[in-house]
Amino acid sequence: MNFDVLQRKIEDMGNPTVVGLDPTRALIPDALLDSAETLADAYINYNRALINAIYDIVPAVKPQAAYYEALGPVGMRVLQDTCAHAASRGMYVILDAKRGDIGSTATAYAEAYLSNEAAYDVDSITINGYIGSDCIEPFYDAAKKNDKTLFVLAKTSNPSSGELQDITTSDRRRVYEVMGDLIEKLGADSRGEYGFSRIGAVVGATYPEELRIMRERLPHTFFLVPGYGAQGGGAADVAGAFDKNGRGAIVNSSRAIIGAWKKTGKGGLDFAEAARDEALRMRQDLRNELKY
Amino acid sequence: MNFDVLQRKIEDMGNPTVVGLDPTRALIPDALLDSAETLADAYINYNRALINAIYDIVPAVKPQAAYYEALGPVGMRVLQDTCAHAASRGMYVILDAKRGDIGSTATAYAEAYLSNEAAYDVDSITINGYIGSDCIEPFYDAAKKNDKTLFVLAKTSNPSSGELQDITTSDRRRVYEVMGDLIEKLGADSRGEYGFSRIGAVVGATYPEELRIMRERLPHTFFLVPGYGAQGGGAADVAGAFDKNGRGAIVNSSRAIIGAWKKTGKGGLDFAEAARDEALRMRQDLRNELKY
Repeated sequence: MNFDVLQRKIEDMGNPTVVGLDPTRALIPDALLDSAETLADAYINYNRALINAIYDIVPAVKPQAAYYEALGPVGMRVLQDTCAHAASRGMYVILDAKRGDIGSTATAYAEAYLSNEAAYDVDSITINGYIGSDCIEPFYDAAKKNDKTLFVLAKTSNPSSGELQDITTSDRRRVYEVMGDLIEKLGADSRGEYGFSRIGAVVGATYPEELRIMRERLPHTFFLVPGYGAQGGGAADVAGAFDKNGRGAIVNSSRAIIGAWKKTGKGGLDFAEAARDEALRMRQDLRNELKY
Repeated sequence: MNFDVLQRKIEDMGNPTVVGLDPTRALIPDALLDSAETLADAYINYNRALINAIYDIVPAVKPQAAYYEALGPVGMRVLQDTCAHAASRGMYVILDAKRGDIGSTATAYAEAYLSNEAAYDVDSITINGYIGSDCIEPFYDAAKKNDKTLFVLAKTSNPSSGELQDITTSDRRRVYEVMGDLIEKLGADSRGEYGFSRIGAVVGATYPEELRIMRERLPHTFFLVPGYGAQGGGAADVAGAFDKNGRGAIVNSSRAIIGAWKKTGKGGLDFAEAARDEALRMRQDLRNELKY
């Protein structure tokens, strides 16, 4: 599904939020750990319950591959189950894998995650484009062929992102702008109804000025915006990610939502309900700022 | 194991080669496909036989994660078996995964691949550092703690690598040099007997001039050099990766070795022998140039 489908889901729900499904042992309530035979089973139960609790108010989920890979091979079965369950609930599934390689290797990654025969039912994947367009193109080809999308890292949300990404080039662009221009150019032949191509960009909420610059610069690029909440970005900071019609971006929150039960004092018995409550709070926070 | 161990293996064998284990269906001889119940089993048999055929003449293997991930969850069992088998034969195992993320996510990747309790028995992993030192540090911390290493992408071997990596900065460095300087700086507290830190760099054989510049610039950084053979780099091109003592680099070849049987006209019955013959040919090619 392209970004038109995601944009429509966002507008139908009035909520440009994606929930990061980043399970760790510490985030799973004791009752779930006790009732499952293995940690992998506990992850499956946790993720399914979270998805069931939010799918009618949140348009998308973003499983972070690292947390599944950390369980070894069985973790990939958890990832498979989680993607399939989210897809079955009608959610847009963005696999946060930050993969990147060239030629036949990039094609193998694209087969793994962006093919319609892939083990993982995902709509989109995150890509690290430092290698250049040789890396982006095989993923993009798969996305076009299989009606999927990708997000390329442009300006990431972490404190040291400027070390490479903020470098000023001899033609007075920043490296993240060079990456952005490449994304905008490569995607020119796949613009949908709302004008967005199948190649999105990751631009962090923690750099609101850069976010605004990038929104202006890349009118046909859909943004995935990490850094809201736990990393310090607020609703005002993410506002610059949206175009004048309030379109073109989705804002991620992970631990603040899936670990919301840690702040309710109920020992985790309410983890799904707490996640829904926090997702509703975030929705309202974004609505207030974006005037939905 | 740090790069001292790898350097010693290289010198003991007189061979600075790493063999890329990048299985695809097309590379597996028919006889192996026919005798295995599943493609995954065929991959396992193929990789084990290749390892058995070269472990006494080649110091290291580099499984490329993408080809295993392309099989879905079961592919990770193949990867697990391959890493374990190579390690049991005394080979240095470099997982080519080009992972990269920040904070707890990077820590989860490091747990997945660089912990001593990890499902995968690897000595080293490749990392994409576009995100900055926030990305490199968690992997580096795990490497120091668990006696392992990592390789960070600096100047990659593909045609479009210059789009981002060759950009000239306002202080007249190239972006790949900025990445190199960061690698050299971050690794300063883990230099071994031969002077190399636990953070290596990926620098492609297809850019011999840049390779020489980087060797000069990063005296304490061990290089992983892709691009020999199939991508067009020859022994003369990789020579610049080595320091004046002939140390500090390992050269990758993948398909030319593991698919060498395709050129012998024996239908693949000789795939392991053909791989060994090609590995010996490459060793001689490198020895002639490096005057081992």
